Amino acid sequence: MRPHSSIGLTVAPVLAAEAFLSEAARQAELSLDHWLPSATAAPARLHQAMRYSVMAGGKRLRPALVLAACRACLGADVLCAPALAAVELLHTYTLVHDDLPAMDDDDLRRGRPTCHKAFDEATAILAGDALQTLAFQACAAISAEAVTTLALAAGSLGVVGGQQEDLDAEGQPHGDDAADLLVRIHRGKTAALIRASVELGALAAGAAPAVRQALVAYGEAIGLAFQVADDCLDATASAAELGKTPGKDAAQGKLTYVALFGLDGARARAKHLLDEALEALVPLGPHAEQLRVLARFVVERTR
Amino acid sequence: MRPHSSIGLTVAPVLAAEAFLSEAARQAELSLDHWLPSATAAPARLHQAMRYSVMAGGKRLRPALVLAACRACLGADVLCAPALAAVELLHTYTLVHDDLPAMDDDDLRRGRPTCHKAFDEATAILAGDALQTLAFQACAAISAEAVTTLALAAGSLGVVGGQQEDLDAEGQPHGDDAADLLVRIHRGKTAALIRASVELGALAAGAAPAVRQALVAYGEAIGLAFQVADDCLDATASAAELGKTPGKDAAQGKLTYVALFGLDGARARAKHLLDEALEALVPLGPHAEQLRVLARFVVERTR
Repeated sequence: MRPHSSIGLTVAPVLAAEAFLSEAARQAELSLDHWLPSATAAPARLHQAMRYSVMAGGKRLRPALVLAACRACLGADVLCAPALAAVELLHTYTLVHDDLPAMDDDDLRRGRPTCHKAFDEATAILAGDALQTLAFQACAAISAEAVTTLALAAGSLGVVGGQQEDLDAEGQPHGDDAADLLVRIHRGKTAALIRASVELGALAAGAAPAVRQALVAYGEAIGLAFQVADDCLDATASAAELGKTPGKDAAQGKLTYVALFGLDGARARAKHLLDEALEALVPLGPHAEQLRVLARFVVERTR
Repeated sequence: MRPHSSIGLTVAPVLAAEAFLSEAARQAELSLDHWLPSATAAPARLHQAMRYSVMAGGKRLRPALVLAACRACLGADVLCAPALAAVELLHTYTLVHDDLPAMDDDDLRRGRPTCHKAFDEATAILAGDALQTLAFQACAAISAEAVTTLALAAGSLGVVGGQQEDLDAEGQPHGDDAADLLVRIHRGKTAALIRASVELGALAAGAAPAVRQALVAYGEAIGLAFQVADDCLDATASAAELGKTPGKDAAQGKLTYVALFGLDGARARAKHLLDEALEALVPLGPHAEQLRVLARFVVERTR
């Protein structure tokens, strides 16, 4: 897998999913370390909580999608470095706030105590707030358009909106429109930021509009597929595999694909979304191979 | 007070503080209404909570500073419209989160139930989150540099950092470094965003670096003066005047200027900061008159 040359540019080799995720995680963590204030800078407790939450590991799937999209558009890795940090900072803030007692009330995240357990509730609220701020600060190093893209994905019509609809739906009877509501929740909670990650990679690389549009369609499909796969994992995997408490969805009466369509129905839906994602990449040809590898990983992963 | 013409541009008349605040509030509310999703858009509960918190009134001092700074740099009002919304959205999100039970646990804000009292705690957390996102979305309509300016003011080294230091200091014995700590808290909690408001007005107007620097010095001084005046008001005013619960600082053993230096000491400090702010404006000449009027208002206000 030596790098090969195409139209005079050095193109990175295509890696297996786990190897590529490791490479993206390495680059993301360098960028995160650059953007995050030192744990000793005042106020130290706040900066410790921010680093504790961000540096807890995790798959770093969103930075991997930024990097793969940037490379698919023949952009140099350095162009998307701030976006690698931005999407992970944004994602981590949503986890810190979702875990709060007033929200999902989770004690365990990525195999460790959640932020409000390791520190305290006020610090967790503030750490989440500051992580969101820092995400936009990093994003501004790309462009104002990148900030708009991330904000549209993150706000009340994206991630935060999906979380609100999820909370509102909890314990409610699931009517005829349950499938529509579920797609709306998934689109907001998960797909919006995954799609934005792919789009930010394209923006950082200065992609042409048609290429960007193809990548957005890909991002939307794997974003939805990711959440369907997540519902399947919650229903089947162990705490050790997940690094968080499994089976909580069913226990809380949450609206999930598995609850609505059963495990087989959910798996068929994920497979269909994978096909959609791969179809969207056809115009990009061989440069999009890493994105194809990631798409398959999203649907077939076991953690 | 007819508009008069200077070097071929129409210059807005200088208004008394209350009249100018009303004009800025009118423009800010038009811009806020543009940026905020409709209260009927899904998820409606979230959008209602966002509008409830933002449209509760308040002095709109930060938008007024944006507008006055933009005009001082001879920028047309329309240039700073997104920034009027951005600073008020950012400010409102910090109020919504500060009022939460895990933070200051306040029931009353601007004379009405706080967001988590009128809705619920989860919705208040999410509404605050989405208001912060929207602030950066609006700011991106100015420039990437404007986003960076707002983020630096809002994050762990600005507003959120000040709030954390304030919480950490609560109930602690006040040592020899109490005055330093207090300035650090004030600089973060209040001065950072007030300074950024003035700077955003200058950025929106495309001000020259020297002008921008003078405005930043002005913003820093009145930002600190604002918080000193706030401490004085908390110690002396009634709930009807403040629209929130007075005397809480003393009851909670909070570190304030009044607690450290007494009411007279605090008032002298505010006067000194006012002089600093006015001194910084000297190079701007008559165009900065509205900023001078606002500076005096900040120190002499009774609400």
